[in-house]
Amino acid sequence: MKRLEQLTQEWKGEGLLLPIWAEEDHLCMVDQLKLPKEAPVVELRKVSQLAEAIKVMSIRGSGAIGIAGVYGMLLEAMNTRGDRGAVIQSGLELKATRPTAVNLMKTVDGLIAFVKNCPDSGFMELFEDRACDILEEQLAFERQLGKNGAELIEDGDTILTHCHSGALAGSGFGGRALSVIRTAFLQGKKIHVFTCETRPYLQGARITAYELEKFGIPHTLITDDMSGYLMKLGRIQKVVVGSDRVAANGDLINKIGTYMHAVAAKENGVPFYTATSSHTIDFTLQHGMDLEVEFRPGSEVTHLNGQLITSENTEALYPAFDVTPNEMISGIITEAGVIRAPYIENLAKLKR
Amino acid sequence: MKRLEQLTQEWKGEGLLLPIWAEEDHLCMVDQLKLPKEAPVVELRKVSQLAEAIKVMSIRGSGAIGIAGVYGMLLEAMNTRGDRGAVIQSGLELKATRPTAVNLMKTVDGLIAFVKNCPDSGFMELFEDRACDILEEQLAFERQLGKNGAELIEDGDTILTHCHSGALAGSGFGGRALSVIRTAFLQGKKIHVFTCETRPYLQGARITAYELEKFGIPHTLITDDMSGYLMKLGRIQKVVVGSDRVAANGDLINKIGTYMHAVAAKENGVPFYTATSSHTIDFTLQHGMDLEVEFRPGSEVTHLNGQLITSENTEALYPAFDVTPNEMISGIITEAGVIRAPYIENLAKLKR
Repeated sequence: MKRLEQLTQEWKGEGLLLPIWAEEDHLCMVDQLKLPKEAPVVELRKVSQLAEAIKVMSIRGSGAIGIAGVYGMLLEAMNTRGDRGAVIQSGLELKATRPTAVNLMKTVDGLIAFVKNCPDSGFMELFEDRACDILEEQLAFERQLGKNGAELIEDGDTILTHCHSGALAGSGFGGRALSVIRTAFLQGKKIHVFTCETRPYLQGARITAYELEKFGIPHTLITDDMSGYLMKLGRIQKVVVGSDRVAANGDLINKIGTYMHAVAAKENGVPFYTATSSHTIDFTLQHGMDLEVEFRPGSEVTHLNGQLITSENTEALYPAFDVTPNEMISGIITEAGVIRAPYIENLAKLKR
Repeated sequence: MKRLEQLTQEWKGEGLLLPIWAEEDHLCMVDQLKLPKEAPVVELRKVSQLAEAIKVMSIRGSGAIGIAGVYGMLLEAMNTRGDRGAVIQSGLELKATRPTAVNLMKTVDGLIAFVKNCPDSGFMELFEDRACDILEEQLAFERQLGKNGAELIEDGDTILTHCHSGALAGSGFGGRALSVIRTAFLQGKKIHVFTCETRPYLQGARITAYELEKFGIPHTLITDDMSGYLMKLGRIQKVVVGSDRVAANGDLINKIGTYMHAVAAKENGVPFYTATSSHTIDFTLQHGMDLEVEFRPGSEVTHLNGQLITSENTEALYPAFDVTPNEMISGIITEAGVIRAPYIENLAKLKR
């Protein structure tokens, strides 16, 4: 697969942090569950191995699992020397790993439809071309998002971010929030990042800090309860976070803790931005608070790295996400530009 | 020491959670560093052992180390059969363990002055009486503080608290914030407590949850970044925290994270209270932000129970306290009543 090989070389040369890539006859993947202690590269030779990795979240983030779907179908095409039925079947298997992952579903469905309409003759090349187009589109999306967002970042800014919205959750350039931060950095702006550890799962401490280090971006780890006071001390100029979902009115659904940073930012006059894809805007959701947020098992709060951190009988609550009202959001950074209030009107323009 | 023995029996019978107490010829102490996994009772037979325990923070909290000073001098009086010089010397040794602990200093200085002015004849009884008076005063303080604060708590309230401001940091009834909560509970009010884990040192998960369990008060552990969203969901009716210091204008200096709960409480119209002693008000500090807050080693953020939770080269910040502006404080609960705004005028009335 010549074009794929060429692209992979190019991407690595550019210093991208790929969550998954192809090598000759197999795939390679960074096992994100092991971060930051080691960044083991896992070899995947069967689609079932990749499906398992998606299920256990060794690879995660909507962008990353979307392209994982593409790579999985490419692997099956290689393994079966272009058996269209098998490739379609592999797409269905991959889609089933995370039934609520919209990006994975859309990407795989698109490729399945392409395979179905493909002639048998020359299938491998046509399929490789289509798959590479998708991978390039995803990277182009991150670059454009980053460019749009970087205009908001000034030389000397210290930027707060929460959770992980970076390269390994995307397609390697910087995902969402980190594409904005990385682009500003690549533009030569002197910036510093405060990465919040993001309890209870510590994505900020484990993954975002790792990526910032890999990209050479100066950063400092803080606990989630410190951001407000640091804003009050004048040590934070911007907040940039990712997004799990954006409602039609601009309300932001994102990792638990996001809301408190937004409230503190409002109180201290610090601009608060979310980086998202125009496809993540859920026009069927009128208000963020209409969404019933998932509550995860309390044991993920009472235990840390398998160790109990509290009394044995203590129970815990774990709302996985929270809702930041649109009035606290200074701008929604998308690949189609930075959307400002009034959000209902201005987001509706993105509807296609 | 008859009166001391009697009092100790009484306190235990009442279900107090004593941080330190006397037994025949020695002292016993809960080693707070081991909580919550075990609550080992350590026997102390020499003042030097107690001094070491205070230094390494096996016993901590301004109230608890204040009474530890009293118990230490009692121990020395027992060990030397009333050698006044040795008792004074032990007071000096104990005072030196935590040079910035105002309560310890004041309490020990008072007792040293008492010993100096004491006649040799009947010293043991006079000293025991004075020491017991101080211990009883401390408990009376907690009970009165609790009573004043409990008037603010309504049947059915869920109360958020941060860090540890409880019995083991005080003299066993409930310290400061937990005296308020415990009194409301003992009055038969149906309450529930959300205890924030309080990163990075996890005092809320480790100690507050332990005390709530011991006192039988229904509670739930949450991470610090969840309080705002739970307020937004209407699941928190009051915030009650302790205080490290209160400025003359009512600004509150307390454990890092307090400010963000206060900002979220303001945003969501949830009353925010701090429980304190009228002696903790620092009339020499005009505004909270005038205080230069201690920054502790970043390694306390990057490591948890000795384990690195982030990339090896990641540095961290750890402001140990933050400042909550007076305008976010609905009331300052003291043993002398609940002080309301305007704080400069109303706090000044407590000056003695």
